[in-house]
Amino acid sequence: MEPLTSIDRLSLNTMTTDRWTLQEAVDGCARAGIGWIAPWRNRVAEAGLKQSGKMIRDAGLRVSSLCRGGMFPAGTAAERAARIEDNRRAIEEAAELGAEVLVLVCGPSSDKDIGEARKQVLDGIEQLVPYAREHGVKLGIEPLHPMYAAERSVIVKLSQANTMAEQLNVPDVGVVVDVFHLWWDPDLYTEIARAGERILGFHVNDWLVPVPDMLMGRGMMGDGVIELRKIRHAVEAAGYKGPIEVEIFNRRISDQPGDETLEQMKNRYLEHV
Amino acid sequence: MEPLTSIDRLSLNTMTTDRWTLQEAVDGCARAGIGWIAPWRNRVAEAGLKQSGKMIRDAGLRVSSLCRGGMFPAGTAAERAARIEDNRRAIEEAAELGAEVLVLVCGPSSDKDIGEARKQVLDGIEQLVPYAREHGVKLGIEPLHPMYAAERSVIVKLSQANTMAEQLNVPDVGVVVDVFHLWWDPDLYTEIARAGERILGFHVNDWLVPVPDMLMGRGMMGDGVIELRKIRHAVEAAGYKGPIEVEIFNRRISDQPGDETLEQMKNRYLEHV
Repeated sequence: MEPLTSIDRLSLNTMTTDRWTLQEAVDGCARAGIGWIAPWRNRVAEAGLKQSGKMIRDAGLRVSSLCRGGMFPAGTAAERAARIEDNRRAIEEAAELGAEVLVLVCGPSSDKDIGEARKQVLDGIEQLVPYAREHGVKLGIEPLHPMYAAERSVIVKLSQANTMAEQLNVPDVGVVVDVFHLWWDPDLYTEIARAGERILGFHVNDWLVPVPDMLMGRGMMGDGVIELRKIRHAVEAAGYKGPIEVEIFNRRISDQPGDETLEQMKNRYLEHV
Repeated sequence: MEPLTSIDRLSLNTMTTDRWTLQEAVDGCARAGIGWIAPWRNRVAEAGLKQSGKMIRDAGLRVSSLCRGGMFPAGTAAERAARIEDNRRAIEEAAELGAEVLVLVCGPSSDKDIGEARKQVLDGIEQLVPYAREHGVKLGIEPLHPMYAAERSVIVKLSQANTMAEQLNVPDVGVVVDVFHLWWDPDLYTEIARAGERILGFHVNDWLVPVPDMLMGRGMMGDGVIELRKIRHAVEAAGYKGPIEVEIFNRRISDQPGDETLEQMKNRYLEHV
């Protein structure tokens, strides 16, 4: 399988350098020659929305995605409506930043009824479609690892995200493939092919052995067991040619100097992805 | 959904009271009126195989399963053959103890090629079938939670275990449903129905929020988010009427006095399963 020969699709998800402000991350990308960035909303809020858009454009960066919307299920209709409102703000922010995709982390169930929560997710996304379309922002359903099913996302398999996207069947809704969340699935390659042009994002990192922490224990590419290049080829064969985000939740990595992380990221990307 | 009205199907998996020797666990079950036990092989080895069988029979207990065989993938043919030999020993032990089922935890990959590891698992189980049949022991493929894919089992969904059992298509091979490993799967109920008479075991416990530890962080029934009764009803509707094992990997629970754990187990079983 052919390696990548340039970093022109490489994107920094700001969680990877979580100690940096957005300005520091933007400057770091510019220094490192990385052309894409994927900011988290809290970093944008700190810097101010207009100012965030300006600093990203001034540095010549493009925005691969905004992280994150979602969190749809809630115990009452009023709470669910409030979540939809928050997602509308996220869509506006994505549009202002020029992000093509708003990543949806769909949320946990508010009680034990996981089936009902899944219906609330589908209903929530459906409600957002017109607003997303008006703003020229696509909604990317990101299935999370099943170990986050109780706390972060009742959407846990690519087959599930694909089924939801097919049910909605609009060009504004697709899926995001993150290797950390999906590598274990025996149906991964079938589901990547099924997703096809609906793939709106591709995230890389690695699965460490042992996992140092359930939330903050992801690895740098090459340090774990995921067949990164094989998955990248499958995603490309399905039709995805867009940016490739490095999204690593790892305290040790975010604590090291950001410039070091970016250098390592670039090398590992060419070597392993 | 109807609760259970007696504990006559309740079984103690010895991992739940991991500080107890097998003799202590057998005596504890007898005191608590629990009629089934599922020993781990290390506890049997400590007590001696013949002696273990005798103490269990003398106490009037039945053995719901022996934990565990499996661990098939390895880097060389010689290593894989050694794993098969070890599984033959486990089958002999299960037969000696009168266990109807040997639970298979299928093992991690020896390298990054998870697809090859899965083939090695299927091949390993196939090799064991004649020996299992001779000894009157059934082989129960237990899919583990995907968070254990890199370290314990490349078999991570019930659909996968069902497909393997269907491919082998012999009465000696079935599947084991453990709620901790499978509760998150949107295809769970479809796959339980598909498994049907191939279900050879049913394990209960709970998924705590937050998870205190990736390996030793399971909960007592009722302390977490799993729809235990709904799953139990589905397993019964599929045809399974056998023992229900309480298998909890949790240091806090195994550190408390075993008799307390057994009392709590009985109450929670009637209340939540």
